[in-house]
Amino acid sequence: MPRIVVDVMPKPEILDPQGKAIAGALQRLGQTGFSEVRQGKRFELTVEGEVTQEILEQARHAATTLLSNPVIEDVTRVEVIVDATIGAGE
Amino acid sequence: MPRIVVDVMPKPEILDPQGKAIAGALQRLGQTGFSEVRQGKRFELTVEGEVTQEILEQARHAATTLLSNPVIEDVTRVEVIVDATIGAGE
Repeated sequence: MPRIVVDVMPKPEILDPQGKAIAGALQRLGQTGFSEVRQGKRFELTVEGEVTQEILEQARHAATTLLSNPVIEDVTRVEVIVDATIGAGE
Repeated sequence: MPRIVVDVMPKPEILDPQGKAIAGALQRLGQTGFSEVRQGKRFELTVEGEVTQEILEQARHAATTLLSNPVIEDVTRVEVIVDATIGAGE
């Protein structure tokens, strides 16, 4: 069944304490190749039947109203995947 | 600067209460085209300089040891992105 992937990341100007903690942990573990880590969210919405333009519009609307907080987060992707292959996107 | 994206999703057989809550909210909001929602995590690791094979190996190792809990989560992607374009992957 097709799925719509929505990626949400903290805005670049927003401090990301979880990402900072991970970056610190990587340093302590001796993995020093990374200068910054940021943590966001990834949602997979499974679609009943076919992905119509209307469904995609619903997903985009949900992405900005329900799945993210527009004050501190950006929706970086709303994209259809069919069997792990990227189909149509934004 | 190049970034390595790591996607982590709950294993299919694991219950995902956050996803369930979102699916319920979508239904209540009248967006009935979605049968299931699952919520995972997305990490962006910014790389100092060039992405070598060693850095990619470090990222893969971090993905399975630090960024995910292998008991309940799958690492679904470890991929280099350069300026929002997908470069090299797993």
